[in-house]
Amino acid sequence: MTEERVLQVVEARKGNLTEEVRAVAEAESADPAALMRAVAGGTAVVPRNRRRRLLSPRGIGGGLRTKVNANIGSSPDVADPDLELRKVAAAVEAGADAVMDLSIGGDIAGIRRRVLDACPVPVGTVPIYGAAAARAGTPGGIAAMTADELFEAVEAHGRDGVDFVTVHCGVTLAALERLRRGGRVLDVVSRGGAFLVAWMIAGGRENPLFADFGRLVEIAARHDMTLSLGDGMRPGCIADANDRAQFQELITLGELQAYALREGVQVMIEGPGHVPLHMVAENVRLQKEICRGAPFYVLGPVVTDVAPGHDHVAAAIGGAAAGAAGADFLCYVTPAEHLGLPGPDEVREGVIVTRLAAHAADIAKGIAGAADWDLAMARKRKARDWEGMLDLALDRRKARAIRGTSPPRDPGVCTMCGEYCAIRIVEEYLGRE
Amino acid sequence: MTEERVLQVVEARKGNLTEEVRAVAEAESADPAALMRAVAGGTAVVPRNRRRRLLSPRGIGGGLRTKVNANIGSSPDVADPDLELRKVAAAVEAGADAVMDLSIGGDIAGIRRRVLDACPVPVGTVPIYGAAAARAGTPGGIAAMTADELFEAVEAHGRDGVDFVTVHCGVTLAALERLRRGGRVLDVVSRGGAFLVAWMIAGGRENPLFADFGRLVEIAARHDMTLSLGDGMRPGCIADANDRAQFQELITLGELQAYALREGVQVMIEGPGHVPLHMVAENVRLQKEICRGAPFYVLGPVVTDVAPGHDHVAAAIGGAAAGAAGADFLCYVTPAEHLGLPGPDEVREGVIVTRLAAHAADIAKGIAGAADWDLAMARKRKARDWEGMLDLALDRRKARAIRGTSPPRDPGVCTMCGEYCAIRIVEEYLGRE
Repeated sequence: MTEERVLQVVEARKGNLTEEVRAVAEAESADPAALMRAVAGGTAVVPRNRRRRLLSPRGIGGGLRTKVNANIGSSPDVADPDLELRKVAAAVEAGADAVMDLSIGGDIAGIRRRVLDACPVPVGTVPIYGAAAARAGTPGGIAAMTADELFEAVEAHGRDGVDFVTVHCGVTLAALERLRRGGRVLDVVSRGGAFLVAWMIAGGRENPLFADFGRLVEIAARHDMTLSLGDGMRPGCIADANDRAQFQELITLGELQAYALREGVQVMIEGPGHVPLHMVAENVRLQKEICRGAPFYVLGPVVTDVAPGHDHVAAAIGGAAAGAAGADFLCYVTPAEHLGLPGPDEVREGVIVTRLAAHAADIAKGIAGAADWDLAMARKRKARDWEGMLDLALDRRKARAIRGTSPPRDPGVCTMCGEYCAIRIVEEYLGRE
Repeated sequence: MTEERVLQVVEARKGNLTEEVRAVAEAESADPAALMRAVAGGTAVVPRNRRRRLLSPRGIGGGLRTKVNANIGSSPDVADPDLELRKVAAAVEAGADAVMDLSIGGDIAGIRRRVLDACPVPVGTVPIYGAAAARAGTPGGIAAMTADELFEAVEAHGRDGVDFVTVHCGVTLAALERLRRGGRVLDVVSRGGAFLVAWMIAGGRENPLFADFGRLVEIAARHDMTLSLGDGMRPGCIADANDRAQFQELITLGELQAYALREGVQVMIEGPGHVPLHMVAENVRLQKEICRGAPFYVLGPVVTDVAPGHDHVAAAIGGAAAGAAGADFLCYVTPAEHLGLPGPDEVREGVIVTRLAAHAADIAKGIAGAADWDLAMARKRKARDWEGMLDLALDRRKARAIRGTSPPRDPGVCTMCGEYCAIRIVEEYLGRE
């Protein structure tokens, strides 16, 4: 690590308040010095690539609002760059705190650059997707990808200005051995994890993202790019939750996080996945203990496997519970999960519902000011101030649409109770005393 | 209580296995003798009016699947009996375990009788609605309703065959005093609670459902109608959650439950409402302790006030957490909550999402067999058996619709990953070893 490069962690250690830390602290009404110490200690991150023009930086970690990520990206079947840009716009308009471009079809690099240009919040990617896709049609397939190609992909994403990258460093031969012995129902459901498992098995070799983790950290430091240590061993069904393969990976991620942090690189830890509700809190607490309070970025978790079409709700249940237990960053799930690639409407729905879960978690976590929003809404309800309520709604568009389909005769109430509005009756009678 | 009448509680005490208890035990693969003991002890109920032809009885309480109730019913603005019947059909088709007819507009008694005829699962009502509505247009208004009129309404519902009635017996002068001193933001949001508060304040008199609880129990026993002790003091915003007025009411409900049970009447306890996520489990545990394990019937709870349009999701988060902590019966919330009266589509959405929450709770609670459904789905996913997955989905219609809008080129995968299906890749490489 060369000291002349500006690295958020190094500046924080020196006590230098960077522009990004200051902006995040201001947006959250947090103490800038406390946030700076959290960045120095690795319990919060402010992802921002040094090369990127990032309009709205976000902080992720202890003491901060729970953040929401929206995944967009092409697939081999659906590879329209304009569609992806529409999804970015839908996600940002709905209030996403970050967007991950998971493109794996069409002009992957071109889509990435357009997303980076268009997106005002931090952008994440998974560099192995492009590296693997480039080899997929060639002799030898994914297994023919070289370690250099993988690292060069990470470097290319850094040069493009990506703020954080998912790297599945914990998919090691040791974790694979736990997987083999464990007898999972669904083995590996992580796309990046699957590429690495295929590569490792085909060549009988260790994951380069683990074996040469120092090189990865060097690349990340060059761009001040945050590493999001991926959970390639995340459970793909609740029967596989909290098993030995998953925790073997988590132990590795904790060790790698400590190393990267010493080198001045910000790190998040990714988590499951499919987890039954009674295991969610213990999963979060264990991650926080093993990874010394590093920010925890969960995908869902979905609390049942049987809800395709409603997995955004299954994930909101798990995400709220995870956030309440200390998870810092919720990756959204859309109604299309397990069925197909989401479109812009599904992106919007996913962001809104995940923001609901994050907000519920923030109230439970005791994030300062979180419940003020609810109190303001309650006061509008007390006053039967319908315009005020609709303005304060998390999803103004949908709230207005529903109210509009069922307009009451008396504009001071709603069609559920009409003249028998409990709030109005009680106010009238209590007022008589 | 006269012994010649068949009362579920009395039969259970005698060790007589009733047809209803046997049917419920069979449907749940539960031990009939254990369920019978639970009914005798008041920790489970099998609501069924003696006069009713009930095709599908349901059990609610400890050791049983978490059940889902759908509220339907007219309002002064929307009072179309056919529409209410369509909502009953939507609720039952979506898998509701019970339906409450909360009609308060139009021909209330006529709608009730048609709902009872049409509905194969237990039906609940709130008799005070009709009694109060009958007086609302007359001189003196609701306050002119007599105690006799209220009891006669309960009796009429019993004669019609209603399986369970909500009675707000805990809205006492003592609870009202806690409310006055407490400085709530939203005072009372329960419609039945509001009618009683108005009545009590107007006449300076005690709630007859409390003062003459013995009469209520006599009526219930006459029809073997289950009492659902309503929470008129439930919080209407998270700022009001877990306050003294609420727990004053709960203490009363616990005492009344014990009395009714001695008299051979089945009882459930109703709960909130608006509760922040970190207070949900403690709320449920406290109810179970204060009411000696009586079945707990919660409305939501919604975990934030800011989600009109998505309150079904806010309630799914709270309902899953409540169910996991021991709540037995979840009253659904629809996307129209806080905005207007729901239509059939919103009823369907509310039931499905609440069933999702109940199922997530059942897995967490360890209900025998609950996770088998998930395991079956996971195995279909492993096999990329798309027809099998869609057949097993909680909401087949929506799952098929989403899959249909985005058909993959390769029918063995989905459009999210296409040829890069993690499950397929890993299976192929692990299979080579």
